[in-house]
This record gives sequence, C-alpha cells and structure tokens, in this order.
Amino acid sequence: MTRLVLTRHGQSQWNLENRFTGWHDVDLTEEGEAQARKGGQLMRAAGFEPHFAYTSLLKRAIRTLWLGLEELDRVWIPVEKDWQLNERHYGALTGLNKAETAARHGEDQVLIWRRSYDVPPPGVPEDSPFHPVHDARYSHLDPAQLPATESLKLTLDRVRPYWETTIAPRLQDGTDVLVSAHGNSLRALLKLLFEVSDEAITGFEFPTGNPLLIELDDLRPTRAEYLDHSRARDLPPCP
Amino acid sequence: MTRLVLTRHGQSQWNLENRFTGWHDVDLTEEGEAQARKGGQLMRAAGFEPHFAYTSLLKRAIRTLWLGLEELDRVWIPVEKDWQLNERHYGALTGLNKAETAARHGEDQVLIWRRSYDVPPPGVPEDSPFHPVHDARYSHLDPAQLPATESLKLTLDRVRPYWETTIAPRLQDGTDVLVSAHGNSLRALLKLLFEVSDEAITGFEFPTGNPLLIELDDLRPTRAEYLDHSRARDLPPCP
Repeated sequence: MTRLVLTRHGQSQWNLENRFTGWHDVDLTEEGEAQARKGGQLMRAAGFEPHFAYTSLLKRAIRTLWLGLEELDRVWIPVEKDWQLNERHYGALTGLNKAETAARHGEDQVLIWRRSYDVPPPGVPEDSPFHPVHDARYSHLDPAQLPATESLKLTLDRVRPYWETTIAPRLQDGTDVLVSAHGNSLRALLKLLFEVSDEAITGFEFPTGNPLLIELDDLRPTRAEYLDHSRARDLPPCP
Repeated sequence: MTRLVLTRHGQSQWNLENRFTGWHDVDLTEEGEAQARKGGQLMRAAGFEPHFAYTSLLKRAIRTLWLGLEELDRVWIPVEKDWQLNERHYGALTGLNKAETAARHGEDQVLIWRRSYDVPPPGVPEDSPFHPVHDARYSHLDPAQLPATESLKLTLDRVRPYWETTIAPRLQDGTDVLVSAHGNSLRALLKLLFEVSDEAITGFEFPTGNPLLIELDDLRPTRAEYLDHSRARDLPPCP
C-alpha cells in the first residue's frame, strides 16, 4: 500500500478577494499559512511520512508545501517544482473578481467558463503582464508551450504527462508522495486517479489547505479521506 | 561573469548555546530567522538573481535558504539538497558546550580538534542517537559512507566531489548559483575556490546568515564581498 497526499494551497490573497488567479503569483494570507501548518500537523497525526514532494512554480503552493514539511519535520525530502502542476490559466479573467466578470461577460457565460470541461475563457494578449512569456520562471520553456488561457481539459493535457512520467512511477516504486498544487491541477489528478467523467469532474472542489490522503494499490485508489474532517468535500467513489 | 553566493545558516539554537552541532538537526532561533531574511534582502539589493540553489539535509540551512528565497521572490527556482553539503560531523563532541568539552578533554585538545585541518574528534558509537545510521534522511546511502566523526579534511573529501560534479558545472553553464550550508562545508568550498592552504583555511570563519557574494570568471574568483558589511570577516585573496 502506497500513500499519496494531494493538498491544495492554503487561502491566498485573491481567494480572499474572490478574484480569478490562475498563473498570477499571489501569496498566502495569514489564514492560508495557518491552514498550511494545520495540514502539516494533520498529516503528522495520520503518520504520513512522504519521501518525495511535488509542487508548482507558484508561491502559494510552494509555501503551503514548505509550511507543511516544517510541521512534518521533513524539510529534507527532495522537492520537485514544475509548471505542469500550475493552476489552470484563467486567460482574460485573471485578476477579475466575480462581480466584475459577471458585469463584463454575463453570469451565464461565467458559469460556462467555470463549470465546463473544455471551454477556455478568452486568452490574454502576449503583451499582457499576465502572459507567461514575460515571467523568468518559464524562460527555460518553448514559448509555444505557454498558455494564454486554459480550460480544465487543457490543464489536464499538461498535468497528465507529468503524472505519467514523473509522479506515478515514483508511487509505483513504493514511495509515499506529497503533492501541493491548485484547485484545477488537482482536479486533473483526481480525474486520472478516480476515472471521473468529463461531466462529473467539475463538480468536485478541493478545500484550501486540507490534505486529501489517498491509499493506493498499484495506482488504484482504495481509500480516500480529507484529513480536516470539518472542511471536507465530496469525493468520487474508488474505481 | 557568473555570480555565486555562499551563505552560512542563520544563528541556530545550539550556536546560541555554544554547543557543537555537526549533523544534529537544530532549528534556527528567531535571531537566525531574521538574519536569513536580511540576507535575502541584501542579495536582492545587490541584484543577485540565482537560477539554482543547493543546500544540505539540515533544517537550519534549508530554512535559511527558504527565507532568503522568499525575500528574493524566487521560491520557484530549483533547489537540490544533499548530505555532502552537511556540516562537519563533530563526533563525540556533538551536543557538548565549550565548557563541558574543555572539562572533559582539556582546552588544548579542544583547540586541536577545532583548529587542526585533519584531526577528527573521537567518533560516536553506532548505537548513539547522533550516529547518522539512525536517521531516515540518510537511509538511501550506503552506511559505509556515513561518518561517525569528521575532520575538516574529511569534510572536504565529501564536499569536493559534489562541487566538481554538480555545482561547478552549473556555474560553468553561466548559471548564477546560491549555496546555503554550514561553517565547515563552506570552508571546504572556500578552500577549493581560493586555493587556500591546509594551514590557513581554519583561520577563516563564516558569520551566520551573511551572504558572501563571489564573482567568478570561469570558476576563478575575481571579487568577493560579504553583503552585510557590519558583520564581515576576513577573506582569502583572489587567486
């Protein structure tokens, strides 16, 4: 039996302000830091001892991981950071709050972008500060790889190869793994692991900073549980 | 011109208590955290933008790095942690303060262990909690590699291959690099870079949490400066 924990970053400043964040590099709030520390304490209480961790290139996920590892007293484990675990890129919605977006695009359209599997919002223009070509952390990548917007499907299209080539083989080696990432990159992992349909996946929402502990038998989930029971959400059945 | 910063961890609890620490995993004090943050601010003011970082498997160096990267707003750069950057293992002196050590072994003997290049203190027995065979972070290593004590020479013997195979090639690629480590693993790097003699090297002491910025021309230092001038120490001349 191998153990995998998926944790969404703690509350960020833009979570608090209800703004679409995507690839914008917003930091945790104090509440988010507290959630991250509590997540680490809950993993420790569950006897979870990861030997490897993965995270995105965004500070809200990286710092959630670091605070959790401090509570676990395992800051020494290897950590690999990769853009493929980044949040879905919200394109032209980046930076807008829900009210602004509804006023600009209409509530029905916003619901489609939020809840559909494969409809991306309009892209940001390449001269926008929200386009990743301007960010040094992506300078090692082919600019053609960098999205100006993403649907959940496009997010999954880049999470899947990272899962298949990097995280899954580590788990198959018998290594317990911790992943600190984002609402939609974690949805993509949930979809792959639990074989959730395109229609059903957008109905699952990760609470911030609440570790989801998954027990695996050769990559097949046999049990899953949010460690902070008071802030748990629905989970798909084990396949 | 490539830039390398070597930074010793901020003040730890056992620095404060004047105890030999070595491989024991002691955390930073509040003062040490403040030094680490200030070091990050000084690197930022110097325009230092590392693209890769190296540290040991000990939390005082890892957390000094993390706090520095937060101040640099570069938490996203790759970080590689390796036991070969650990502090010198102080063997049977681990945990003793200076007064206890002098009372037990005599002041002259203590000075020999502290200041000689190649005389290690007595080793810890394998059933000591201070022997690294009991620590999960070293479980991937051959137990024969794990020291029960080290001189500065033995420390350099394991720092050197890591420098030659891992850090130096990265610098030769033109990558600016940040190393967060320990008094004696950094002495070993200083000895290699500045071609310091066996006799002279023990006279150089790294202040805690004070970044040493070194400008390199194909691995040859051309300029070196402690960024916190108020706590600078002597440096060897550029070779």
